[in-house]
Amino acid sequence: MTRDNRQQVGKRDTRRATSYDVARLAGVSQSAVSRVFKTGASASQKMRERVLAAANEIGYRPNAIARGLITKRSNMIGVVISRMTNLYYPELLVQLTQSFSDRGIRVLLFTLEHESEIDVVLEHTLQYQVDGIVTAAILDSAQLDMLDAAGIPVVLYNRQAKDAQAAAVCCDQEEGEAWLVSRLIEAGHQRFAIISGPEDSTVSTQRTSGALRRLSEFGVNEVTVVAGDYSHESGFRGALEIQELLGALPDAVIAANDAMAIGCIDAAREVLGAQVPEAVSVVGFDGIGAAEYAAYQLTTVRQPVARMTHATVDMLLQRIENPEIGHEQRIFQGTPVRGRSARLTEDGGT
Amino acid sequence: MTRDNRQQVGKRDTRRATSYDVARLAGVSQSAVSRVFKTGASASQKMRERVLAAANEIGYRPNAIARGLITKRSNMIGVVISRMTNLYYPELLVQLTQSFSDRGIRVLLFTLEHESEIDVVLEHTLQYQVDGIVTAAILDSAQLDMLDAAGIPVVLYNRQAKDAQAAAVCCDQEEGEAWLVSRLIEAGHQRFAIISGPEDSTVSTQRTSGALRRLSEFGVNEVTVVAGDYSHESGFRGALEIQELLGALPDAVIAANDAMAIGCIDAAREVLGAQVPEAVSVVGFDGIGAAEYAAYQLTTVRQPVARMTHATVDMLLQRIENPEIGHEQRIFQGTPVRGRSARLTEDGGT
Repeated sequence: MTRDNRQQVGKRDTRRATSYDVARLAGVSQSAVSRVFKTGASASQKMRERVLAAANEIGYRPNAIARGLITKRSNMIGVVISRMTNLYYPELLVQLTQSFSDRGIRVLLFTLEHESEIDVVLEHTLQYQVDGIVTAAILDSAQLDMLDAAGIPVVLYNRQAKDAQAAAVCCDQEEGEAWLVSRLIEAGHQRFAIISGPEDSTVSTQRTSGALRRLSEFGVNEVTVVAGDYSHESGFRGALEIQELLGALPDAVIAANDAMAIGCIDAAREVLGAQVPEAVSVVGFDGIGAAEYAAYQLTTVRQPVARMTHATVDMLLQRIENPEIGHEQRIFQGTPVRGRSARLTEDGGT
Repeated sequence: MTRDNRQQVGKRDTRRATSYDVARLAGVSQSAVSRVFKTGASASQKMRERVLAAANEIGYRPNAIARGLITKRSNMIGVVISRMTNLYYPELLVQLTQSFSDRGIRVLLFTLEHESEIDVVLEHTLQYQVDGIVTAAILDSAQLDMLDAAGIPVVLYNRQAKDAQAAAVCCDQEEGEAWLVSRLIEAGHQRFAIISGPEDSTVSTQRTSGALRRLSEFGVNEVTVVAGDYSHESGFRGALEIQELLGALPDAVIAANDAMAIGCIDAAREVLGAQVPEAVSVVGFDGIGAAEYAAYQLTTVRQPVARMTHATVDMLLQRIENPEIGHEQRIFQGTPVRGRSARLTEDGGT
């Protein structure tokens, strides 16, 4: 249904007022107008009032972008985020935008369907002459070199560069999985399956290999791994696939994120008639909002999104200020969440 | 835990290559370089190859922003979204960004903690000289006038302007609620309670008043309304508050969004020991991902986000192309979802 509700508006002057218009009206020079609007530049109180009154009258606003061309700063940061990252961490983008905004910097958003599409998007970020880039998609050394040559600092969010060093802020995926595996093992779980994330996700690779490594340290070397894509549906399908491959559910399913863990629980309960955690323990990773819903109460590892976001903003601004500083990696510990979706021993962990 | 991993990088020339540098290297004029990079401008194949080879060699990229100053287009759209909107519709932002991106337009993101903060943010969008604005926050007539005077078209997403007309793309909140109420009434529900959204949310106001109006048409005039803030927790608290006010749960709880409906179900089951839908029917609105989780399977109305997003992009681009066209409102019907969180009669609705 579409309602049409047109009303004619009068023709109007859409030309933007310039600093010259303000100068003419205020009877001062254009450079005086510039000084009034420039942070830190000197102008008398009287001059300031005169200019601001004139600016107000004709609706003049300093042009942040034109100013950027002069200061060589656009005051814009490119944020490259994959579709899936945003669907499961909407708060990441909100907090990142808010945090940059508090420093007077705007976020120019670039989304990817898949992490591997990054090449095209990088080219676009360069054309908009952003001051820096935060990317939640993996970069290789050629891409890092290109950004380096263009003089654009980059911080990787929850990613490490392929075959190269880069500034990065991460959650310790492997340590988080090690905590989960240790708690499951000490509570007597013996047969394990893993639902991994998309093939091109480094976070998934780190989580899966972290879990496998810890399991191997405990002598568990036969682990069924099925592939998901981070979505709830793929977790649901993953549980059915595991049941089919093994002929029964294992003692525990380790999902590479919370959304898939919830999908796995849904399939276990609704299709396979298996209680969680009585018949099968299911653990996730991330600490998304739905992980706390009463019906799931996931055993998981929560990423400290607020701390990671602040670290990302700080690190990028430092690199913009001083492009010559060396790379830094800040790796944050996740917060273990006992939840109720896994059978853990009383004193296991927090 | 923070790991420090510094490595020194050599000093490098961070000055960006200009079209003059390309012209010098290619042995052509600067205007020839401009023509090669301008869409639709003529240049011989030989000239094109020569310029592109030179541009490639020194890493020149046309500056989208400087070009914008000349064409009077920044090719950027400001998207103003409130924190809560994004937390419950991450796909809105992803689809909007992707859809603009397909047309070569970038999204400059502005987030609000509360819809009422819009004034400050509007001022910022103007400074960045965006070509247009999509806002999922309410605007009043003074704010619309300001944008109009600045020559910046705006499309309201799921909002209607306060005491003024504006271009808008909405889901029909009232019709959606009317569907939900009619199904509940025909299935015999008599006592109703509502958990509303934040006071400054027009969507919540429309949903709540839409439900109340339809209930009144059916002769139900005593309805308990408690205030939520769109969050899961506030739906949880809302259920407890309703139980305390009424001394018992009503036949049905109408939550102004899905997240609160899920919170309400959690409280009913976990704290009040009431089965859903056997003891109490709970309905939501939105059709978020979690509404489909097996543990909830919400009876709700799904917003057609993809269609609404495309309509928004089309409408804004039309207004940018021709600022003189009158306002249009496109109001989309939501998709009723029967789900399993309400006791409905067999033949009720879809």
